[in-house]
Amino acid sequence: MFTILATLKVQKGKEEEAEKIMEELASQVAAKEPATLTYLFHRLQNDPNIIIVFEVYQDEAAFEAHRRGEILRQAGTKLASVLEPGGVEIKVLERFAGFQRP
Amino acid sequence: MFTILATLKVQKGKEEEAEKIMEELASQVAAKEPATLTYLFHRLQNDPNIIIVFEVYQDEAAFEAHRRGEILRQAGTKLASVLEPGGVEIKVLERFAGFQRP
Repeated sequence: MFTILATLKVQKGKEEEAEKIMEELASQVAAKEPATLTYLFHRLQNDPNIIIVFEVYQDEAAFEAHRRGEILRQAGTKLASVLEPGGVEIKVLERFAGFQRP
Repeated sequence: MFTILATLKVQKGKEEEAEKIMEELASQVAAKEPATLTYLFHRLQNDPNIIIVFEVYQDEAAFEAHRRGEILRQAGTKLASVLEPGGVEIKVLERFAGFQRP
């Protein structure tokens, strides 16, 4: 279990385009990365230019495989034109309690 | 579906006590709030005084019931002595893409 919280800043006016790229990314990952267990994209209710991605991987190796993989590389190229420069922040989270109903 | 990202700042030296209170809170919610679907507690890998809670409720009414309920009230009283003053930030997230494997 390896959890990531990613925050992405989208350029003003590029919200719709950005979300389309992320939808496509999510469906590719769903289809082709079984060790990516949870991959949820949200916009902040109070600021739709801020995207929060909650990601759970089977283990750190699965995250590394995702991070270095072809799917994310291709999406990253597209995202580069809609995100703010330096607009990606990645935090590693250590789960210590809680549950997720099936 | 109603998603919350909560960030809590724990006082230095109170990390262990805080995590115990949160573990107890999570198991109470698991047992008694079926409309709280996901309730995951994490510390930041780079700063164990920062707690990130990822919460998914069946709907906004379920979140309000949780927020105003007895379980959170009792935990909140205990947490008040281990969190920084004003150390709770709540963000509402709008999911637009992604998946969660069962």
